[in-house]
Parts: sequence; C-alpha cells; structure tokens
Amino acid sequence: MAQTRRQFLQQVGITGGAGVMYSAMGAIGLAGVAETPAYAAPTRMELNGRGKHVVILGAGIAGLTSAYELGKAGYKVTLLEARKRPGGRNWTVRGGTEEKDLHGNTQRAKFSSGQYMNAGPARIPQHHVTLDYCRELGVAIEPFVNQNADAYLYREGTTALSSKPIRHRTAKADVYGYVSELLAKATDQGALDSALTATDKDALITFLRSFGSIGTKEEGFKYTGTSGRRGYEVEPGAGLEGGTTAAPYGLSDVLASGVGNYFSFEFGWDQAMMMFQPVGGMDRIPYAFEQAIGREKIQYGAQVLGLRNTTEGVTVTYSTGSRPRELKADYAICTLPPHIAATIPSNLPTDIVGALQYARPTNAGKIGIEYSRRWWELDHRIYGGITNSNLDLVNMWYPSTGFHSDRGTMIGYYNTGANATAYGALTPAARLERALAQGAKIHGDVYTKDVKAAFSVDWAGTEHSRAAWVGWTSQTDGVYAKLLDATGNIYFAGDHLSHAIAWQHGAMVSARATVTALHTRVTSR
Amino acid sequence: MAQTRRQFLQQVGITGGAGVMYSAMGAIGLAGVAETPAYAAPTRMELNGRGKHVVILGAGIAGLTSAYELGKAGYKVTLLEARKRPGGRNWTVRGGTEEKDLHGNTQRAKFSSGQYMNAGPARIPQHHVTLDYCRELGVAIEPFVNQNADAYLYREGTTALSSKPIRHRTAKADVYGYVSELLAKATDQGALDSALTATDKDALITFLRSFGSIGTKEEGFKYTGTSGRRGYEVEPGAGLEGGTTAAPYGLSDVLASGVGNYFSFEFGWDQAMMMFQPVGGMDRIPYAFEQAIGREKIQYGAQVLGLRNTTEGVTVTYSTGSRPRELKADYAICTLPPHIAATIPSNLPTDIVGALQYARPTNAGKIGIEYSRRWWELDHRIYGGITNSNLDLVNMWYPSTGFHSDRGTMIGYYNTGANATAYGALTPAARLERALAQGAKIHGDVYTKDVKAAFSVDWAGTEHSRAAWVGWTSQTDGVYAKLLDATGNIYFAGDHLSHAIAWQHGAMVSARATVTALHTRVTSR
Repeated sequence: MAQTRRQFLQQVGITGGAGVMYSAMGAIGLAGVAETPAYAAPTRMELNGRGKHVVILGAGIAGLTSAYELGKAGYKVTLLEARKRPGGRNWTVRGGTEEKDLHGNTQRAKFSSGQYMNAGPARIPQHHVTLDYCRELGVAIEPFVNQNADAYLYREGTTALSSKPIRHRTAKADVYGYVSELLAKATDQGALDSALTATDKDALITFLRSFGSIGTKEEGFKYTGTSGRRGYEVEPGAGLEGGTTAAPYGLSDVLASGVGNYFSFEFGWDQAMMMFQPVGGMDRIPYAFEQAIGREKIQYGAQVLGLRNTTEGVTVTYSTGSRPRELKADYAICTLPPHIAATIPSNLPTDIVGALQYARPTNAGKIGIEYSRRWWELDHRIYGGITNSNLDLVNMWYPSTGFHSDRGTMIGYYNTGANATAYGALTPAARLERALAQGAKIHGDVYTKDVKAAFSVDWAGTEHSRAAWVGWTSQTDGVYAKLLDATGNIYFAGDHLSHAIAWQHGAMVSARATVTALHTRVTSR
Repeated sequence: MAQTRRQFLQQVGITGGAGVMYSAMGAIGLAGVAETPAYAAPTRMELNGRGKHVVILGAGIAGLTSAYELGKAGYKVTLLEARKRPGGRNWTVRGGTEEKDLHGNTQRAKFSSGQYMNAGPARIPQHHVTLDYCRELGVAIEPFVNQNADAYLYREGTTALSSKPIRHRTAKADVYGYVSELLAKATDQGALDSALTATDKDALITFLRSFGSIGTKEEGFKYTGTSGRRGYEVEPGAGLEGGTTAAPYGLSDVLASGVGNYFSFEFGWDQAMMMFQPVGGMDRIPYAFEQAIGREKIQYGAQVLGLRNTTEGVTVTYSTGSRPRELKADYAICTLPPHIAATIPSNLPTDIVGALQYARPTNAGKIGIEYSRRWWELDHRIYGGITNSNLDLVNMWYPSTGFHSDRGTMIGYYNTGANATAYGALTPAARLERALAQGAKIHGDVYTKDVKAAFSVDWAGTEHSRAAWVGWTSQTDGVYAKLLDATGNIYFAGDHLSHAIAWQHGAMVSARATVTALHTRVTSR
C-alpha cells in the first residue's frame, strides 16, 4: 500500500511536475494546501513531427517560458525582443548598465563588482512555479528577507508615536499585548458569551495569555511589556544582568500610531516568509532561459512594427534599426504589455484591441543605493528585511545577501502609483537626494554617508514597458477574457493574463496555459 | 552638528565595538533598542608588558572567547580541553564523526560530503555578539529559517483539528481572523468603553479589519477566510483562475486545537526572524577561534583532575591519557559545566562548590536525518523552517541550506527534558525508527523513504557535557552570584553565568565579563 502510493506520487510527479504532485497529494489527503494547478508540458512524442514555427513577441518571462516549453517539445521558435537583453521587467542593474528613460535621463550605473539591484521582480514565494524553473534551469537561490523583527515602522504625523522609528518587534509586542488584554477582559466579563462557549473562552484566554504575554486573570490580564519581545533598553547579559525593558507605549498612542496596519503584509499568500531570490541577481532566470532556449533563437533589438493574421499563419513586421523585416510563422504569441500591444498596427479585430486597451498601467519606482559600509548591520543591527513608512519612499529594503561584507546595496525606495510618479518626475540625482533626506528621518545621518553609487528606475518612464504592471477594472466582465483565446493564429500571454499580476509566476502560468492551448490545437489536427 | 554626531558615533564605535555604538545611539535618540552592554576588550597598551599566564579549563565557546580576548591583549593562555576538538556543545556532526555516549552507544556518522547536523547550538539572532565574532573571525553566515508559513503545526489529540498537519499560514489566518472578529464585535458593542475612547475604538477596528481580514461593520466583522492568507485549494493562476479557497475551520475547533499557542515563539527576543547560521556548520566558529588563538595553545584530550588556588596563582592537574601532568599559571578560568566542575577535586571553599552544585542540568536531544531526496521542497513546498508538534519529537527542522540540491539533512526531533531523555534511552537505531514513525504522521510515507544516514545526540548522555544546559532555581538569591567573582585566582565563565543560558551569546558575554574582571585586577596592580 505504502509503496503503491509512493509509486503513484512518483508517477504523477514525473509527468506533471510539482503542480500535479500537489494536486495529487491533496486528493489523497497528504498535503494541507493544493498548489499550482497541474501543468503537463508538451512533449516531442505528442508533437510527433508536426513541428510548427511560433514567433514570440517579447523575451520577458512569459515569452521566455513559452519559447522554452515549446522548444522542449520540438517546435521551432523565434523570439523578437526590443531590448538588448532577455527578461523584460526582470532586470538586474549592475555596474555598467546604461539606460535612457522616456523623460530623457540617461543613467549609467557605477555599482561595484558584485553589487546589483533588481529593478523589477525581486522576491519569489515558495509556492510559485518560478522556483520550479530555478530548479530546472539550475539557477541557485538564497533566502530573500521579506520580514525582519528588527527593521522599522515609521509613520510621519502628529500622534505621540509619529516620526519615530519603531522596531517591528516592538510594535508587534505592544499591539498584540493590548489586543490580548482587551479581548481577554471582554471575554472574561461575558461580553462574548453569545459567541463563545465556556470551553471556547478558556481556550481563547489561554491563547491570549501566550500571544500577548499578558498577566493572569488576577492581574487583570494586563499587558506590561516585560517579556522582552519588544526589545530591551539593556540586553540580558552576563552575571546579574537580566535585561532592562522599557515600559510599553500607551494603548491609545499605539492605536493612534497605526503601526499595526502593516502587520498583515507578512501574512499574505504571496508575501509570507519564506521568500527567495536567485543568487547574483534576478536576471539569472532570463539568462538561464536564454541559454536553454538557444541564444540564436532570440532576435534582440527587434521593435515590432506590425502583426497580422494571414490565411497561412501570421506575419510580423519588425525593425532592428535598419529597414523593416518581415517574418512569417504558423503562430504568434504576443507577450508585450497590453497597453503597448494595443498600439501596434495589426489586423486584430476592434474588440481585441479594445480588450488590450482595457488594461490600466500602474507605475512603480525603485532606487538602488550602494553604500561602502553596511551601517544597517553595524549601527542598527538589521540583517535584511523591510522598513515600511508612510513617507513617499514607502518601503526600504536592506540587502538579503553579502552579510558582513564591506559594502551593500539597499533599495532606498520601492513605491507605486503617485509616489513612484513623483520620484520619476525628478532627475536621477534629485531622486537620490530626496531618498536620502527621507531615509535619514528613519536612520539618522548615517543614511546619507558612505554612498558609493545609485540607480533609479521609473517604470512608467521606461521604454518598452511604460508601466510596472497593469490592472483590470474587472477580470470577469468578458472583456479581459477575450485575450485568453487565440485570435486566429495569434495568442497572448503575460502576467497581465493571470491572477498573479506583477509576479513572474503569473507570466509563467499564463505562458503555460497558452502553450497548452496552442499545442492542443496543433496535436488535435 | 551632523558631522559632530557622526564623529562621536565613530569614536565610540571604534573603541567599544557594536555594543557601545548601540548604547550611544540609544542615548542620542537614534536607535529604538539599546543592544549588548558596552564591552571594551583588553588592549596591549593597557597590559603594558604585565603579561600573565591564564589557564582556561574547557575550549567551548566561553573558553575560546576568553582565550581569544586575553590573547589579543598579550596574555599567555593555555586551554585544556577534554575533547579532541574545540567548541564543546557547539558540535557539528559530519560524515566520519564518531562518538561513544555514556549509555554505551557508539555512532559513526555516515552523512554524505557537505551534509551535517549542528548537534548543539544551531541558530543566531541578529543582536547576539556571536555574529560580531563571526564578522571579526571571518566566519561566513547565511539565514537560518526559524519561521516558515508553509511548515506545519500538528497536535495529536481528540479535537476536530487534531492529528492533522495544518500549515502555519492557515492556523494564523484562522486564529487572527476569529480573534479580530470577536474583538471588533465586543468593541463595537461597547463592551470595552471603559478602556477605549471613541478614537481608540475607530483605530482598533481599522487595525482588526486589516489584521484579521474581516468584514465591515455591516457584514458583522465576519471572518470568512477568503483573503488567500490561509492558502488555496486551487491557487490563483492563469486566465480566469482566481483561486479557490476552502472555508475556514470553525471557531470552536480552532480554539480547541491549540494551534495558536505556538505563534508567540516567533515573537521572542531570541527567536524572531531574522536568524543566522554559519555556512558549512556551527563549528566554523570554534575552528575560527582555534586558528585565531593558535592551535598550539590548546591541549586537546586533557581531562582536568584537580584545581587548586595557590599563593602564587593556580595549579591544575590534568591527564592526557598517560600519567597526570601539572600546570601552574597565574590565574585560571574554569568554563566547565558547573555540575561537572563541582566534581573536580579542588581546594575551592564549600560554598563555591555548593554554588556549582546548585545548577540544574537540563537535557535536550536531536537527530539529524539525511535524505537523498528533498521531499519537503518537492512534495510539501517547504523551504526551511520548523514544524512544531505535541508529539514527543516536538520540533522538526527543514534544512536552511542546499535549497534545490539533490539531498539534505533534516532535524527529525529537537526536544528537551523528558522527551529528550526518552529518546536518549533508546539505541540510536531505535531513536531513528521512532522519529520516522512519528514524523510520518505529519509528512506521510515520504518521511520514511530515501533515508541515507542518521545521527542522534542525547546531551545528558554525552561525556564532558552531561546536559544540554543548566538552569538555576534563582539567579538573584546570592548562591549563583558567588560564581561571578574570582575565588582567589580562579574565575568562572560560561553561558550558565549569564541571562542568555543555552546560547553562545551567553558564553561570550560571560567570558567578556570575566576577562574584564581579570584584566582590571591585573592592570590596577
């Protein structure tokens, strides 16, 4: 029996990848959570010599995944990519990276050897197929620090705790302590007797005493902040030094501060630890795809000028700087951002162009700041993680790699929407200046010292992307759905055609769905 | 002003290390939490040729730290260590490691090259001076995964959710959801009006709606589990797949299950993420100390037979297997476990021996299990972290290194007290058998397959340690305190003489305190 079950698991694992394995384990009651729906990659056996030529527009993650999966099965693939590199928004900036943005700014990164910033995607949850491709393609991974009890929360404002960096651990201890005290009191006083049995009440109070580190019933369930969870004024140490705690912040001050409103970020399906990143930069993924697909299959610097369904297949017109060229293939997969795809001359029907135009571009911005001294470790005792604020820089990331080395690259801001656009409107030098002034409110003057290099990206102002990602007013009103089926011989793919928008996972599962649809059509003829 | 402050910080940073930097930053209002109390290492300038000879009993972390700090200042040091290696309880077991325990079991580890288990300390919080020594000694570090939303909680019993592996993320979503719903209702209904102002209530409800992902007031603040935080039956994916969530577990079932009672572990001062480990095994720290101190200063295989204060200094009798030898020095630092030190013939006063005997040994046990397949990643989508249970194995650790490689070593149990002693009483083969049977309850049959090697440690049954650590009935009743001052020319040091017992940090800060006391005495003559 045991052996049979194992054989069964191995069997589905082999043909279907981790996704199928999960579903199967869920079905037989082993796994608590079903993961990615099953994906069965096209095989050479199924294709059986019916190889078709597929032209793929865009060598971002969706295009690369499509080309890789089709190529494995024996399809002829040609990738047309406007940039001089693979990956699209998966972009790692290193020393020497040069970019002219749509505002007219040209930046040339001066990062030291080994230093980089992931300008686009930068973290991978455990359950994303992105990790499966890392495994399959041999891209080494390491933890990405998405949560750190010693990073700060900072809220500018007029409350008692405003404009004061507060460690996550301190905020959590105080919020959880007071929440526990309040709920224990209300429960004990019978306020929830209509919702809770006596057994429930006992179990709840047991939980709250542990969760909030609050006193006994006799002590009024009082939160006094002495557990050490919020940190120490003097750490527990040698001899008689048991540690000195500070009194907790006051209940009203803690509530008014809003520090608790960030906590749920860490519980998110896509954000809860553990998280990962490729060793050496996120672009290790597209470069590994490039190698697996074959460099010669990718035409870089190819700007798409036209896309037409024909009776035989598709015709793509593109330019590599000189005169336009024409490429004929059996099928096309268009992975360009929808708001850009909508502007390309084509014979696509009006409703399909309308569906592409239905996407709402969203902006995001980031700055990488290389320091020649890891002051966040040395002075603030922070090893990776995120400081979150209500300043316009919003999030600051401490590096998840190079611990204890002599330099490191922070993300000085990672923001979206109006904040991103406000920074994007500045010159790169002014963006850095503003980021340093704002960040110094949290970290002190050390934040403005030992700056070695910086590079900033404004995704709305970045050629070939013109957005960080897109949103849809609705994904169920029938407009978005028009892009999920082939229009003649033209298919679409991209994270925008998934429910994991702005994640590489979304691009990958969309590409897989498109590859499956195309392959099913080819093999069922 | 800015420059002045920075100069001040640099100045104290240079002379006092990170600890002083923290205190100073706290004092001028920069850092939210003061860290380790200041430590000023002895210097050659201060010693000024008054070099004394210090014999150190035990080359565990306290002994190594003492020797290292004294050696830097010009003291002559001799370390006597009963084992054939440095580190004491800091012990990394690799292929070829052989150990005969006090029960008469001899194990020889058959781990593959690159595989290991840290049998003693295995994780380092950001604020421990252990990391400072890693930096100073050039020991590379990497994250230790102490928290993983996709690891399991498992409670054997008779409740509705008993004997069912539940992902941490699922347990958290449900517990936080219901807690938020209950507290929001009680607050809204005025049950807490004596404790909360109207402004407090608004802020609290805003927080609870985010924290618990609960409905609006109109929706009765109801928790429905649809946020995705608890996981999906079908993940959000391509096209129209928005993800399918399962209904949350029932309120009474969640409370009865006790799954929430583990959460506070992750908020602990010493356990909150981020945590770290040396690359390649915890014993990289003692071996780096050995190299920095000088291998020739350490006499391995030296069993201490006697310790005497003399008018000139100290005399230590020890054996290296042949006849006893005698070593005379100016001072001794005894870092042996107190319950072992108490058994060594000496002329220590009765009250000092009584203070050593006052320590209560605590047991802990661990088993390392090497698998030739990383089923936790492949089948369960767990990349490092801890599964916690009420089984006698208590904690299981997935490896924090070697992600995506072809093999890995789990900690199959990490338990303390009676559970550890129960496993310790078994033969190593029977320990493994029991660990596999228990672990399979959580992970299924996969847990019993692909086992390549195993090694278990029972600290109470380990020669030269005879405990995992010790506790004290009191650290303030005057008995413990007797060991903090020199008895004649004999000093004591160790994690047991700190408020960070069972941590290397405790051994290090104790050693620093002892070194400081000894150095002050020498230099004030």
